Amino acid sequence: MSNNKPIRRIAIIGTGVIGASWTALFLAKGLEVVAADIAPDAETSLRRFVKAAWPALERLGLAPGASQSNLTFTPDMPAAVKSADFVQENGPERIDFKEKLYRQLDELLPADVIIASSSSGLTMSQIQSACSLHPERCVIGHPFNPPHLVPLVEIVGGAKTSEATIERASEFYTGLGKQTVRLRKEVPGHVANRLQAALAREVYYLVAEGVVSAAGVDTALSWGPGLRWGIMGNMMLNHLGGGQGGIEHFFQQFTGPMTAWWKVLGQPVLTPEVQRKLIDSVHAEVGSRSIPELEAQRDEILMGLIELRSKYQKPAATSQRTDAA
Amino acid sequence: MSNNKPIRRIAIIGTGVIGASWTALFLAKGLEVVAADIAPDAETSLRRFVKAAWPALERLGLAPGASQSNLTFTPDMPAAVKSADFVQENGPERIDFKEKLYRQLDELLPADVIIASSSSGLTMSQIQSACSLHPERCVIGHPFNPPHLVPLVEIVGGAKTSEATIERASEFYTGLGKQTVRLRKEVPGHVANRLQAALAREVYYLVAEGVVSAAGVDTALSWGPGLRWGIMGNMMLNHLGGGQGGIEHFFQQFTGPMTAWWKVLGQPVLTPEVQRKLIDSVHAEVGSRSIPELEAQRDEILMGLIELRSKYQKPAATSQRTDAA
Repeated sequence: MSNNKPIRRIAIIGTGVIGASWTALFLAKGLEVVAADIAPDAETSLRRFVKAAWPALERLGLAPGASQSNLTFTPDMPAAVKSADFVQENGPERIDFKEKLYRQLDELLPADVIIASSSSGLTMSQIQSACSLHPERCVIGHPFNPPHLVPLVEIVGGAKTSEATIERASEFYTGLGKQTVRLRKEVPGHVANRLQAALAREVYYLVAEGVVSAAGVDTALSWGPGLRWGIMGNMMLNHLGGGQGGIEHFFQQFTGPMTAWWKVLGQPVLTPEVQRKLIDSVHAEVGSRSIPELEAQRDEILMGLIELRSKYQKPAATSQRTDAA
Repeated sequence: MSNNKPIRRIAIIGTGVIGASWTALFLAKGLEVVAADIAPDAETSLRRFVKAAWPALERLGLAPGASQSNLTFTPDMPAAVKSADFVQENGPERIDFKEKLYRQLDELLPADVIIASSSSGLTMSQIQSACSLHPERCVIGHPFNPPHLVPLVEIVGGAKTSEATIERASEFYTGLGKQTVRLRKEVPGHVANRLQAALAREVYYLVAEGVVSAAGVDTALSWGPGLRWGIMGNMMLNHLGGGQGGIEHFFQQFTGPMTAWWKVLGQPVLTPEVQRKLIDSVHAEVGSRSIPELEAQRDEILMGLIELRSKYQKPAATSQRTDAA
């Protein structure tokens, strides 16, 4: 990796919610960002987003030289990627759009510039098939919303992605303080979205069946198991759940009940009636609290939790990259 | 409820992990506890547990008069429940054992003493069928381990449980600072264990399939969606995930991908080979770190997170009880 030139200048393609949040993060890490989007008010929205995110980023710690003035905007994509060291692409999740875009990027960019996609709905094997020159520098770098606050980045290559690209992308994100996970196989939704989907399915089922209200299930999650899932993952918690016998004892003790519960987990269908029931129950939970008020509360506690974890968990440099065992 | 005499003296039946943790909590809240267990070293283990838990309870705040000296131990169950105002039962999860125990308790205790069971594997309708006198005062009060740290208590009655019992148990736990959830129907595993089972199923699947290691999936959870699940529940986060359009917009936007992911979620079978693969991957993640070291780290961050939430979220007195909407 030492053969590659340092990554200093990032091109952001697509400045919707995810692209804007990436922009804020890269700027906070002291990088230069050139952002491109063809939407009419894109620049105004982007600069407003970055400005609003800045106090949180200051609190989490700006890199030397970090400044909002290191952001350039252009509606002209080819101009944006010119002399970029790394591209973070956040375009619409349509394969025809992505193919056209990647064909163009592949022709515009030197072979050593990585093109990372934030896509969650498409695989890199699909996307990179459009690149005839250097498909090996294309990789999924999927953040968890909002990327400027949540550390996770999922990294997965397509059939033609090179090992060097995956290594270099991992090092880049890790160097910015992100927590990267490498997937060894392409699966729909990557990992985090699948975990969310698995949990949400049972949540919706229990509310739809009238076992519990939205407020009730939210209390059960956020004052129960959810409290620990922002501290350690399921596997490590299972290890501790086995007492002195660790993970071996956990499986001896809990395979029975766990398997029994799997048999009765729900498979709800999101009909308009079920959606209505879920929506009504959420409104009863929310009451008069506004979305900005709740967002501010969520992000305030989120930052506090991230600070707590960085205080108590000082991982070795390598442990921020969790590859397959 | 004001007609009932205050709850000052708790009988704990069964002082295993859950019973010991309940004991520590009740003592920290200034209550008197009489604990019963027939195991040979039960008293020593219990007092050791309470002593070890005490610094954390001091940090979270002791009630006036709270003291470890308010604990009495006896191997004699009938003596323990004599003059108890509330019973928290944590016996073995076998229906024959519970039936015999509840028949005995029902005969020993005045009608106004609530018998709350920590059971997760049995329903109260099953258990209370053994009570011929006052089955209406029996209720599930299911904590999340460890009860002295994690606020959640799930409350659910059986077919014969009275509304007054559910109300009074809810008020009792809420008054101790617990976060209670009322279930309107009895379902296996209640809510929190089902949510855990739903998540764990996909976690095991992704590791078993070689998509990601135990370390990888733990990073994806605990630095991704898990960070938010200890702050707000799935339904409220969906509401915020819909942007200014809230939960309605969330379902418009995400019903498609969510439903598509549900179709491809895994259904692993915990064969010895699959367990071996999961266990090996956990050991690779854990490395040389000891269980006590990891437990201390988990609980330290857990307390910090609970403190953060109580700092930023000051719920109205009623909002700690989340009933069906």
